[in-house]
Amino acid sequence: MTPFVHTRRVEFGETDMAGIMHFSNYFRYMEAAETAFLRARGLTVSWADAGVQYGFPRVSVACDYTRPVKFEDLVDIGVIVEKIGTKSVQYRFEFRRDGVEIAVGRITAVFCRSIQHGPFESMALPADIRAKLESP
Amino acid sequence: MTPFVHTRRVEFGETDMAGIMHFSNYFRYMEAAETAFLRARGLTVSWADAGVQYGFPRVSVACDYTRPVKFEDLVDIGVIVEKIGTKSVQYRFEFRRDGVEIAVGRITAVFCRSIQHGPFESMALPADIRAKLESP
Amino acid sequence: MTPFVHTRRVEFGETDMAGIMHFSNYFRYMEAAETAFLRARGLTVSWADAGVQYGFPRVSVACDYTRPVKFEDLVDIGVIVEKIGTKSVQYRFEFRRDGVEIAVGRITAVFCRSIQHGPFESMALPADIRAKLESP
Amino acid sequence: MTPFVHTRRVEFGETDMAGIMHFSNYFRYMEAAETAFLRARGLTVSWADAGVQYGFPRVSVACDYTRPVKFEDLVDIGVIVEKIGTKSVQYRFEFRRDGVEIAVGRITAVFCRSIQHGPFESMALPADIRAKLESP
Repeated sequence: MTPFVHTRRVEFGETDMAGIMHFSNYFRYMEAAETAFLRARGLTVSWADAGVQYGFPRVSVACDYTRPVKFEDLVDIGVIVEKIGTKSVQYRFEFRRDGVEIAVGRITAVFCRSIQHGPFESMALPADIRAKLESP
Repeated sequence: MTPFVHTRRVEFGETDMAGIMHFSNYFRYMEAAETAFLRARGLTVSWADAGVQYGFPRVSVACDYTRPVKFEDLVDIGVIVEKIGTKSVQYRFEFRRDGVEIAVGRITAVFCRSIQHGPFESMALPADIRAKLESP
Repeated sequence: MTPFVHTRRVEFGETDMAGIMHFSNYFRYMEAAETAFLRARGLTVSWADAGVQYGFPRVSVACDYTRPVKFEDLVDIGVIVEKIGTKSVQYRFEFRRDGVEIAVGRITAVFCRSIQHGPFESMALPADIRAKLESP
Repeated sequence: MTPFVHTRRVEFGETDMAGIMHFSNYFRYMEAAETAFLRARGLTVSWADAGVQYGFPRVSVACDYTRPVKFEDLVDIGVIVEKIGTKSVQYRFEFRRDGVEIAVGRITAVFCRSIQHGPFESMALPADIRAKLESP
């Protein structure tokens, strides 16, 4: 099955003095790809409804880097939903340049709400969100 | 009069492929210096009170760069309150390395509130905030 | 004349706790728009040639903000070359959302080279770069 | 044994619209802590010597988040060298606020050089660097 792919071009301000994209920016790319993936399914990553804030705070993230990318490189980020739990979603992100894998990342996010700016509390994924995440 | 000074050391992730600190990060430094300045006077830059969000959104900012700074350079940021209007504050930031001026920035911020996540609306600076900003 | 326009969608990680795009990120957007503008003319913002590093370090930047933008807003950034000096280029950036101007920025950049990682020294814009910048 | 501790205060520009520090910034904090740790031992994370660029590109990073942190929170980042390989170093970073652990991160970096801006090639850690990393 073809995964959802989001494409970015490496910006000057995303490079560091070693001449390559700074490693922390891969997490920005993952989140941009995740957001684009969710948007394509009518979802988003953070929203408010009737005074309650909903969202997907991250509980665990990781990235393994194989090859560096440079300024103006085009990077394809494939988004794969690896697992949908009762309250959480686990994504895998496959970074490619010219078809060659350069990095693999992971984000596990938990569905949460915050009432009146109170602490985030995890909750079961509503059926409609789950259905949209599970659709092929 | 001695201005308030906030000191930062340039981080690896703040540099770019030209080997110097990326120009956008000076604005991060200005805001960190402004926040430290406000904190020293018992103030802050964004807060909530009884469901109302208060803060100082920026309406105008600028920076002139004389010399670049590099990874691990120590940068002193002097904070000068140039002008306090009815609703706004204008800061000047003097960047120095080893006592030599390397950049000068400006931020004009307007005091605003947002009720229940509604639009920001500007309002007159309350007397207590004004007094703390004006104290030498 | 129609200016060059670069479009971005505001990312989650570009917002701040006030719920709007952090003001420093407008400079990232300006640079991305500038880079896209240069790329469309066969130019770039930083490159190496025969051991010499060339680029356009910024000497002066500014931004005036009229209305905030939020997560997932689409932002159009118009790029206008305001002035081409002997050694420098001055850009104006017009930010719009749904056709309404929300911010205006400026970047003045000076053409420089750095030999063997030495200090940046400004130099006259080569005729071919100037011609590409001036072409309508 | 007491680990090396680097302390940061969460900045306004590091928060996101959910009102907490954006998850990607923990990697910036890890790198700042790593750099401070290296500096305390007379080392650094990227440098040039006789036309050769040396550094520690990251091959694998991760972070697990337990509790969020907010604007102006003080965060202590403990740095623990978990493993020193022939060519690599593995760090663990323990994030605490008021003594309570809020996140744990990991960075594995490989010692590399790049000759004349060529590709990074990994190499054995020189004895002096190894000795400084291993010293208690």
